[in-house]
Amino acid sequence: MLTNLTIALDMMGGDYGPRSSIPAAVCAVNAHANLTLILCGNEQVIQNELESLDSLSHPRLIIRHCSEIVTNACEPAIAVRSKKDSSMRVALDLVKSGEAQACVSSGNTGALFFMAHYVLKMLPGVKRPALISAVPTERENPVYLLDLGANVHCDAEVLYQFGIMGSVVAGQAIGCENPKVSLLNIGAEDIKGHEGIKQAAQLMQQSPYINYTGYSEGSDIFSGKADVIVCEGFVGNVALKTCEGIAKLIMNKFTKALEKHLVYKCMAFILKPVIKKLYNRVNPDQYNGASLVGLRGIVVKSHGNASAKAFQAAIDEAVKEVERQLPDKIAAIFEKTHSNDTAAN
Amino acid sequence: MLTNLTIALDMMGGDYGPRSSIPAAVCAVNAHANLTLILCGNEQVIQNELESLDSLSHPRLIIRHCSEIVTNACEPAIAVRSKKDSSMRVALDLVKSGEAQACVSSGNTGALFFMAHYVLKMLPGVKRPALISAVPTERENPVYLLDLGANVHCDAEVLYQFGIMGSVVAGQAIGCENPKVSLLNIGAEDIKGHEGIKQAAQLMQQSPYINYTGYSEGSDIFSGKADVIVCEGFVGNVALKTCEGIAKLIMNKFTKALEKHLVYKCMAFILKPVIKKLYNRVNPDQYNGASLVGLRGIVVKSHGNASAKAFQAAIDEAVKEVERQLPDKIAAIFEKTHSNDTAAN
Repeated sequence: MLTNLTIALDMMGGDYGPRSSIPAAVCAVNAHANLTLILCGNEQVIQNELESLDSLSHPRLIIRHCSEIVTNACEPAIAVRSKKDSSMRVALDLVKSGEAQACVSSGNTGALFFMAHYVLKMLPGVKRPALISAVPTERENPVYLLDLGANVHCDAEVLYQFGIMGSVVAGQAIGCENPKVSLLNIGAEDIKGHEGIKQAAQLMQQSPYINYTGYSEGSDIFSGKADVIVCEGFVGNVALKTCEGIAKLIMNKFTKALEKHLVYKCMAFILKPVIKKLYNRVNPDQYNGASLVGLRGIVVKSHGNASAKAFQAAIDEAVKEVERQLPDKIAAIFEKTHSNDTAAN
Repeated sequence: MLTNLTIALDMMGGDYGPRSSIPAAVCAVNAHANLTLILCGNEQVIQNELESLDSLSHPRLIIRHCSEIVTNACEPAIAVRSKKDSSMRVALDLVKSGEAQACVSSGNTGALFFMAHYVLKMLPGVKRPALISAVPTERENPVYLLDLGANVHCDAEVLYQFGIMGSVVAGQAIGCENPKVSLLNIGAEDIKGHEGIKQAAQLMQQSPYINYTGYSEGSDIFSGKADVIVCEGFVGNVALKTCEGIAKLIMNKFTKALEKHLVYKCMAFILKPVIKKLYNRVNPDQYNGASLVGLRGIVVKSHGNASAKAFQAAIDEAVKEVERQLPDKIAAIFEKTHSNDTAAN
């Protein structure tokens, strides 16, 4: 465990802004004795919220006033150009300057991605950063799915690099040397899919940095047959959001089915905590804390409608990533691949 | 209702072959008094199965012997070139010659798509056929999702045409004049997605044949906010299979959670039928009978691991499509769009 840890929080993002980010910050500093949080946002609003939680004078909660907010409607390019004193930008600047080791935001995903890319820059050799998240499986360990929407389309080389980065993230998280990496496709046979996928499969197969195990179909994601599943952002985003949708549908239909019969109704009352717990475990929406990987710094994206508890989970994820030194580990592998390429030429 | 109806069945496809297709055929002719089925496949095998069900002499079950089978491992192009006496090909030929008004197969999807395309040809003006299926929603009516994997990538014009075809299918199925059509995207805002989607959105917005209602995200599929959701085949296939995967995961986790406690265990026993029914209602895998639309004939694709009951559902779907005269209705709209285009030039 690192002795001291500082994380910058964008307090103003997401649907609930400081109403979820402040209680989350207070709980997080209480849970981690070595953690200092820099709260970026409107000073007055943050002070009021902290006061209502009797935490205004907490020595490890530091307020950094910012005069602007990046709203959900804000176009990414405009956010980068004109929102220089926004809570999102200031939190990223703190990572860039080294004052914070990571940042967490539940704001506009597109803007966060563009801004993080612009402020922090990519690790040497990395072509595109990716959004990665853990997704529940039948096994004990989750599967790491990337990209989740940071890059609409990706060529073979980019997908291959996602395989390397996903491998580092999963390997560190589940404590495994050679996590199994798979490509998401529309069939398990070699002939399936488009050219980009087939070329990426070839690159992964030949790579000493990836334990490539073939294609996965959508239905295989949750089986746990792979530790990392790679796809382009459009597909990953649709897959993840489709999961949220169907999980909600199943829970709603189940609750409604139970209401139809008195015996079931009584059971529904007793079963409520089981159902709730299950929903939280299988709904990827609740697996809070997707990370941007491939950058020269740690950026964790909390879900836009994250509750205080979910936002705290995103802070916990950032703490773990700092402890695991993910950017350094990813950089080390890309340096090796670069030396190999140079040696080969 | 049509007076007489003939449907050709590929008896040899899918994981169970005649073991599921024969009982399904027997039930179907018993359920529809005006239905004749032509059973394409190995005569001896079909006769034995029919005999075991006391249905060998059923006057509306006609056997058409075929010497070949298209296996799941068979490449589509090879199936088209060299499997001319396969049960799949003969069933399609019967639709082409007019002896049957539709065909049903649970065989190799890629081969069925290529073969159907080659044998039946496309309706005038249609650029690509699509695989469409109903998916459950929060509302009473399902949503029709296309394409589900027949076309890996699709340009704007193809997506637009899928909107027209989906609109006809949904309109006929749910009895509605102007079904709401949406494009699957990674955000609801106009700026989201790639160029192909943005252009398709523009084409749909300007079209008098589509009631376009904007973008849907993966999580919106099941809300019922749209009657038709259009996407390219890669995305649709991943979305549908992801649903199957997460539905299975939820049911397994729920069953396991109930086993942990004696009280819950007793309840699980009573709840079993509710859970089973729910699973069948929400698992798209069970919504059997995806259709190929855009061809000069009706082709229904049953799931590869379809049980007899599921295969029968696919036969029922084919019966409905014949009654609704879907290819004629789609052709009529494409003729209109063509006349409009000609008038405009």
